[in-house]
Amino acid sequence: MDSSKIFGERRTVEQVEEGHELAPKFDSNGLIPAVATDYASGELLMHGYMNAEALAKTIETGEAHYFSRSRQAIWHKGATSGLKQRVVELRIDDDQDCVWLRVDVTGGASCHVGYRSCFYRTVPFGEQAADASGPLRLEYTETEKVFDPDEVYPGVPNPTKL
Amino acid sequence: MDSSKIFGERRTVEQVEEGHELAPKFDSNGLIPAVATDYASGELLMHGYMNAEALAKTIETGEAHYFSRSRQAIWHKGATSGLKQRVVELRIDDDQDCVWLRVDVTGGASCHVGYRSCFYRTVPFGEQAADASGPLRLEYTETEKVFDPDEVYPGVPNPTKL
Repeated sequence: MDSSKIFGERRTVEQVEEGHELAPKFDSNGLIPAVATDYASGELLMHGYMNAEALAKTIETGEAHYFSRSRQAIWHKGATSGLKQRVVELRIDDDQDCVWLRVDVTGGASCHVGYRSCFYRTVPFGEQAADASGPLRLEYTETEKVFDPDEVYPGVPNPTKL
Repeated sequence: MDSSKIFGERRTVEQVEEGHELAPKFDSNGLIPAVATDYASGELLMHGYMNAEALAKTIETGEAHYFSRSRQAIWHKGATSGLKQRVVELRIDDDQDCVWLRVDVTGGASCHVGYRSCFYRTVPFGEQAADASGPLRLEYTETEKVFDPDEVYPGVPNPTKL
């Protein structure tokens, strides 16, 4: 699918915010943030980025494609792990600089660490954090991994950067 | 709240991904993306950014603070509009470069255009988009605005950039 055809020009604020034409904004690196939630539970699964090609491929195929910043390449989510994200609904925000994917996940996990969601830890706040004298302590919301990363990604470098 | 105390150092991938210490990663502009969903419905409300101070203030107060890139300033969400976001749960992702806020919204709207969610339009994909010969047509998921932006933000410039 040719992104130059399906993406409109950004001409006015009113057109972008209140119009009917898809006119996404890519940042200075050519990327737009993409947020994936579980269609059934509403749980936030992951936050990634797409370039124009990845967004066009997602629209064409109905399967989530991202742009891997660590590999600098199009990333068909699940191509290695089998844990694909089938798009059920795709939305874009007011100024069209972020997309929201509501997805069904094959295999039930979206996180390279092995959890269902990448967001498997909570941060204390308010009274819970008031007496902190050092780094805040995270609590786990998932106690068991869905898969073993060493089995699913044998020999693949961990994408996390410090 | 002093962010230099409550945020830990990022020493190893294992510590960041599988540990219990809050050690957020801010990008080259000093920002971390922040995603807010409605605590009750799971709906994605907005996608913004925080700097270290905004994240620390969010943790301290339990009310969402962002960093406005257009104004280059801390932005206590709702300070102008009254539409504050009370944090019910705060989570961080595997590599700690994105935070997720599950919030209750005073007034029921999070979008400066006047809608409940910033993501009030769907993008067609798959068969719906297969025959497109021009920019894709967005469909509205919300038909009525919750508030009138001209009344809530009198004289405030629209933050959307082309």
